[in-house]
Amino acid sequence: MGSLVLKSCCLFFLILFVSQHYSVSAMKKSLNPKKPCKRFILYYHDILFGGNDVANATSAATANATRLGNTSFGMLVVFDDPMTKDQHLLSPPVARAQGFYFYDMKTTYNAWFAYTLVFNSSDHKGTLNIMGADMMMEKTRDLSVVGGTGDFFMARGIATLQTMATEGIKYFRLKMDIKLYECY
Amino acid sequence: MGSLVLKSCCLFFLILFVSQHYSVSAMKKSLNPKKPCKRFILYYHDILFGGNDVANATSAATANATRLGNTSFGMLVVFDDPMTKDQHLLSPPVARAQGFYFYDMKTTYNAWFAYTLVFNSSDHKGTLNIMGADMMMEKTRDLSVVGGTGDFFMARGIATLQTMATEGIKYFRLKMDIKLYECY
Amino acid sequence: MGSLVLKSCCLFFLILFVSQHYSVSAMKKSLNPKKPCKRFILYYHDILFGGNDVANATSAATANATRLGNTSFGMLVVFDDPMTKDQHLLSPPVARAQGFYFYDMKTTYNAWFAYTLVFNSSDHKGTLNIMGADMMMEKTRDLSVVGGTGDFFMARGIATLQTMATEGIKYFRLKMDIKLYECY
Repeated sequence: MGSLVLKSCCLFFLILFVSQHYSVSAMKKSLNPKKPCKRFILYYHDILFGGNDVANATSAATANATRLGNTSFGMLVVFDDPMTKDQHLLSPPVARAQGFYFYDMKTTYNAWFAYTLVFNSSDHKGTLNIMGADMMMEKTRDLSVVGGTGDFFMARGIATLQTMATEGIKYFRLKMDIKLYECY
Repeated sequence: MGSLVLKSCCLFFLILFVSQHYSVSAMKKSLNPKKPCKRFILYYHDILFGGNDVANATSAATANATRLGNTSFGMLVVFDDPMTKDQHLLSPPVARAQGFYFYDMKTTYNAWFAYTLVFNSSDHKGTLNIMGADMMMEKTRDLSVVGGTGDFFMARGIATLQTMATEGIKYFRLKMDIKLYECY
Repeated sequence: MGSLVLKSCCLFFLILFVSQHYSVSAMKKSLNPKKPCKRFILYYHDILFGGNDVANATSAATANATRLGNTSFGMLVVFDDPMTKDQHLLSPPVARAQGFYFYDMKTTYNAWFAYTLVFNSSDHKGTLNIMGADMMMEKTRDLSVVGGTGDFFMARGIATLQTMATEGIKYFRLKMDIKLYECY
């Protein structure tokens, strides 16, 4: 009778292993969007260079808007922006966001981002690399965290953006809700 | 005798677990390129802005070609292009491709792409983020799907590009064979 | 007595499976940064187009520096650079690096890269897609390998950059230590 239980026990694990092995040959795992392994919320501040405000500006348009529509299509901005823990522009930055965005729609303002969050504090040292579409008409929009280094070695996840404030294209503030689902 | 079988059974699973654990410390898994967990084929249409065709154009050069060679080296194009299920430009788009490409070879036409496929239909809601070299002289070329959001939460895979039609640099149509190997 | 061992054995594996399953719902695995599954060191050579050196130049500025500071903020360079196994510019290239970088700091030289390593030799066929911040003041800095194709199908990892030589912004040579942690 013990032998019977034993056999079924063995069979049970064998099936589990085999099914597990198969599922790897095209990974269909269940990551739970509500359960990141790491999460933090930071605020991004972008002050576009106007020509005379070198001290304050954190970004500059390196390619101007094209004449395709009236919503800055093609305007490409390089930035080195402070990231703060709260919404205040003058709070001590806990990271820098270095990268670029451009406007890419002829009927409305819409942007595309690629950038690196550079952490260099006692809390965190390392980087997170992020890219994706910033569909500005949506309340929130998700970009991909495609890699990380240092404390965030090999991380992947989602960065949810939300516009908190804008002053034309001169200044804007984004909330970035960073959720990592692969932590190593 | 049952005890002997039991012991070897336990040992067998122990070895399996240990080997599995070790293999994780530098993942060398066997994903099968021929067995994606999700696949779909879409067509990308790019109509470059010529100056007077605002209504039709879907992309615009925001940085002009440099004088390094005669194959548009450095020309950088921002696009918001329709993606269709069949090859017809006027078919209802099932997604948008938002991003940019630039030409990057001085001896022949060759490009580099980074973009987001934005799905917003009853079939799919979400995005796929893609980047890579578009070696235009090759019949097909593979780019990386580096992340996804929404219905494509945390996806990774390969996007195989194939040129279907070109009219100079004014219009071109690409087949995009999107194969996801990580689905969650 | 055999039955008792059996039961505890079953329980043991059950706990292991359950714990394994839970850990998947937000992956927290232990990849060892010191144990990549593949590694190689290559050298990157960038010769910026000056206007008259079409034959030698491998890159060209397609957007000029802005007036935000004096360290080329916003200058965007498209490149198609040779990758060699040793430090000699004229060694036979084993790959091409195709992509772009821009300078993005107003107080010092600092850059951001996105590019594809294109391998097309008897040793390797395929590509690796890389992006991240190049904090030039650091001795070494890590970028993310966010995807791969061909021989590097679905790869991920870290590319560690180190400046080996510079002649202003006209020529520079980087050591790229490519470490892959996901190999398929």
